Amino acid sequence: MDRVVRVNARTGAIEVESVPEELARWGGRGLIARVIGREVSPVCDPLGRGNRLIFAPGWLGGTAVAASGRLSVGAKSPLTGGIKEANVGGEAGQKLARVGVRALIVEDAPDEPEGRVLLLSCDGAEWVDGMGLSGAGVRETFRRLRERFGPKHGVVAIGPAGEMRMTAAGVATTDADGVQVRYAARGGLGAVMGSKGIKAIVIDDGDGEVARGAEPDRFGDAAKRFTAALLADPKLEGRRKYGTAGIVATANELGLLPTRNFSSGSFEAIDAISGATLAETIAARGGEGRSGTACMTGCVIRCSNVFPDAGGKRAVASLQYENIALLGSNCGIETLDGIAELNARCNDLGLDAIEMGGVLGVAMEAGHARFGDVEGAAKLLVGEGTPLGRILGQGVVFAGRAFGMRRVPAVNGQGIPGYDPRALKGNGVTYVTSPMGADHTAGNAFGSRGTVDPLGVDGQVENARMLQIRSVILDTSGLCLFARGPLIAEPGLIAELANGRFGWDLSFGDIARGAAATLGVERAFNVAAGHSDLTCDVPEFMRDEPLPPHGTVYDIDPQEMQRIWTLETDTKRF
Amino acid sequence: MDRVVRVNARTGAIEVESVPEELARWGGRGLIARVIGREVSPVCDPLGRGNRLIFAPGWLGGTAVAASGRLSVGAKSPLTGGIKEANVGGEAGQKLARVGVRALIVEDAPDEPEGRVLLLSCDGAEWVDGMGLSGAGVRETFRRLRERFGPKHGVVAIGPAGEMRMTAAGVATTDADGVQVRYAARGGLGAVMGSKGIKAIVIDDGDGEVARGAEPDRFGDAAKRFTAALLADPKLEGRRKYGTAGIVATANELGLLPTRNFSSGSFEAIDAISGATLAETIAARGGEGRSGTACMTGCVIRCSNVFPDAGGKRAVASLQYENIALLGSNCGIETLDGIAELNARCNDLGLDAIEMGGVLGVAMEAGHARFGDVEGAAKLLVGEGTPLGRILGQGVVFAGRAFGMRRVPAVNGQGIPGYDPRALKGNGVTYVTSPMGADHTAGNAFGSRGTVDPLGVDGQVENARMLQIRSVILDTSGLCLFARGPLIAEPGLIAELANGRFGWDLSFGDIARGAAATLGVERAFNVAAGHSDLTCDVPEFMRDEPLPPHGTVYDIDPQEMQRIWTLETDTKRF
Repeated sequence: MDRVVRVNARTGAIEVESVPEELARWGGRGLIARVIGREVSPVCDPLGRGNRLIFAPGWLGGTAVAASGRLSVGAKSPLTGGIKEANVGGEAGQKLARVGVRALIVEDAPDEPEGRVLLLSCDGAEWVDGMGLSGAGVRETFRRLRERFGPKHGVVAIGPAGEMRMTAAGVATTDADGVQVRYAARGGLGAVMGSKGIKAIVIDDGDGEVARGAEPDRFGDAAKRFTAALLADPKLEGRRKYGTAGIVATANELGLLPTRNFSSGSFEAIDAISGATLAETIAARGGEGRSGTACMTGCVIRCSNVFPDAGGKRAVASLQYENIALLGSNCGIETLDGIAELNARCNDLGLDAIEMGGVLGVAMEAGHARFGDVEGAAKLLVGEGTPLGRILGQGVVFAGRAFGMRRVPAVNGQGIPGYDPRALKGNGVTYVTSPMGADHTAGNAFGSRGTVDPLGVDGQVENARMLQIRSVILDTSGLCLFARGPLIAEPGLIAELANGRFGWDLSFGDIARGAAATLGVERAFNVAAGHSDLTCDVPEFMRDEPLPPHGTVYDIDPQEMQRIWTLETDTKRF
Repeated sequence: MDRVVRVNARTGAIEVESVPEELARWGGRGLIARVIGREVSPVCDPLGRGNRLIFAPGWLGGTAVAASGRLSVGAKSPLTGGIKEANVGGEAGQKLARVGVRALIVEDAPDEPEGRVLLLSCDGAEWVDGMGLSGAGVRETFRRLRERFGPKHGVVAIGPAGEMRMTAAGVATTDADGVQVRYAARGGLGAVMGSKGIKAIVIDDGDGEVARGAEPDRFGDAAKRFTAALLADPKLEGRRKYGTAGIVATANELGLLPTRNFSSGSFEAIDAISGATLAETIAARGGEGRSGTACMTGCVIRCSNVFPDAGGKRAVASLQYENIALLGSNCGIETLDGIAELNARCNDLGLDAIEMGGVLGVAMEAGHARFGDVEGAAKLLVGEGTPLGRILGQGVVFAGRAFGMRRVPAVNGQGIPGYDPRALKGNGVTYVTSPMGADHTAGNAFGSRGTVDPLGVDGQVENARMLQIRSVILDTSGLCLFARGPLIAEPGLIAELANGRFGWDLSFGDIARGAAATLGVERAFNVAAGHSDLTCDVPEFMRDEPLPPHGTVYDIDPQEMQRIWTLETDTKRF
């Protein structure tokens, strides 16, 4: 974790440098904020030469700490026009850390992007010739890279959508078995990778070692306590059994489940797409189907799954809440098989399934397919760059404008994930104020419904602030959102882990203030890029159109939301 | 000129009120800036309920002053996301003034826009039922309204593109004979009109009178002096003979003529599309062809034309410089007949021909037609709302993003008109800093090439400031850009006209300061809408890619351009 690799995508030059002082304190999202803040002009074309694409493991990447190997990917987003960090599980984050790379920074862009492959190892980095992967789907790309480099390499790659610089494109990676397709999905980072002419990055950690920390005993103790707390989490069993899909039925009961292009918050066919049905179907079908699988080696939570088709063959892995909400109820689709088919198509094309679920909802309302029509929806997910495919692949806002629609569910240029802010108002605050735009991981109030009324106005801004800080800490550490439990119970534990890892002497308050500073760097970039605080709001229809079944509109005043930037940082509570 | 008519496009309610104090001093663009500044939220959805569409004649509208009857149309632009005023010749501006309307303000929007027709007369305003014009082309719309209401009514209307809320849609009007199709083209105001569910506005000035001014003698004297100066302008003969197309050859010589998607500034087939060829062709073909026609009754400049096909039938009227540049050389199209065909299609669909010329250039580079292929380009101008048509009808930036292109000639969301800023750097300053975005009428430095080196940096910002102030004064008065000669020679004349008209006592300095204030109101709206001063620049490729034949790039620093807002207003020079 002591190197920064800089790749010039135009000239092909590769430089390896030691971690500069100003980045030494950061990982993941925190590091990305500082690289972009220093090196990227806020006014640059996100798909032009001035943008930089950064891959960074978190603080705990490369260690044996459970659920800590997430990979952060960042750039100026072509979807939101602001800064973007999207992170993803799978193996690549761990392996990048294990080859000693704190950050891979891709600079400049070629005039004619051509889908090159970059190989990183403990020896440095080099271009791999002759793979001829341009235009290949993500599955085929992973298969061929595995064939060439063996099963132990980490891979990140883009699909045809990213190569075509479609702004709903994500960056894909996979698990140790090469079975799951996982995405740093949001913000169009796949299009940025496409604009750099890089189809895939392969990471060979053959000689890499598990990092034991600058203070191995302290670190080891903290890691053990952390794992024990994760294993003691009462939510663990549900997460293993149902994965993120465990909340489908609850979201429906709360009336916040996006349904038919955000025209309702509950779905009549809910039982067919619930987490319970998902688990039962996987169990009943057997074959390649699995519940409770891990995306990262060593994760004790194991919330992933392999969803099989009727014949037991893998249809998609992993099938998750957001995709069930957006590709399912939001499209009126009533079967898990239908959702899995659409999800698999998005995964193979290299498209963000959340954004595409929003797009399909808009396209269905515009008459391009009936709600509930899996076959019609599948036909819309075309990869060959037809004009319609070009529209859809650019995301919700673009499709809404192309079709002249009013009900366009997006905030700050990005499609709204699986929580309608009219029935979970805290998420409205996060969608509007987070530098990441409408994002389900940037400060999600779903878990706060015991303490803050989801339909009320009071306390939402304060709560969103706390949640956003928490997200930054997790995203800077490389920890999964599902690993938050032990840290909520004992905020000092994250400081203990970071200190043991690097030999620092930070308190939790230092870490919280650092996260607040990260938000500040991100926000400053966005303001300089043209996101004035008051230009951002939920879409007009969400302030006008009551959402069944609660009949609520989004009614938090824009000025009130912006008060979030004046709040003190809580240095006690994670 | 003493009323404001407010139409609620959702409820259908119509209210007529006297001109409020705060608008009494303003007409045209100046009035629009203040209505939008007061009544429209900068963060509203331009195609949503919060936007307002305003029609306003200028100060001199409804009088006998030559070339003074332009109609200003304004709203928050769905293309630029900022304020937009576009103005147009033809008869509607005069007639609106003559029925005593200082401003027609369309508020709110229906859920299901349906193409209604509004009739304005001296008696007030009413909805006209049963026209069934939805989906009709602009020519057919004008024909049927003329059939129903007679030839003496003024009409503004949108085509199918506006009804489909395509953001390259303009607002069309016509001359007294119903021959010309003229456009308040830029900024997507046709889409705003479409979102309001209004297909056409008919103005019956049967009882309207020519305004003689609050001080008739003073006003009459000033008007006479103005007309005499216009008639004495040495440029008059050229303008009558060649129209705006008179500058085609000069633009080519200066190396600033957009050619093949802004990849060159000169065009090898220049002789075939020059103003001289235009005039000769019109003369040789005869039939319905005409040079030196007026767009407004009483105009002494008469720069318009009717361009006939080989059989002498009207192909398009009027064929102008911008359209020759954008639909011609920028698309590699080598014949006036080809340009006329594309122009006529844009006019009938209700699309801004400048924006569409930019779009076709991008589409051609993306491989959707060959440069120079008229038939291929014509096929791209489809009206039926195919996905490709949906992409193209949204303008240059949208098409560039859909096709994943780098060379996207637009500033502030709007396609660049017929002056490449690499070879006419003053226009770059105006494109970037004008609240109107890349606009050929917002402060065009083409006429300044005798005093400021078009390829140099020095003096461009000061010159652009002067030109932008001049534009605001013209656009507030209802005067044509070609009427600037007498006012440059004698700045006090515009004050004399305004004072005679309204009984005011303004100096030229007052008018210049008022214009500067208008720019300030517009800029403040845009900043609040998210246009930070530093987020706007020429597209990246114009700073990177030298433009043949001069081999220059655009090299005025963004900070230097923003210095424009710190300059004093010149109170002596028009």
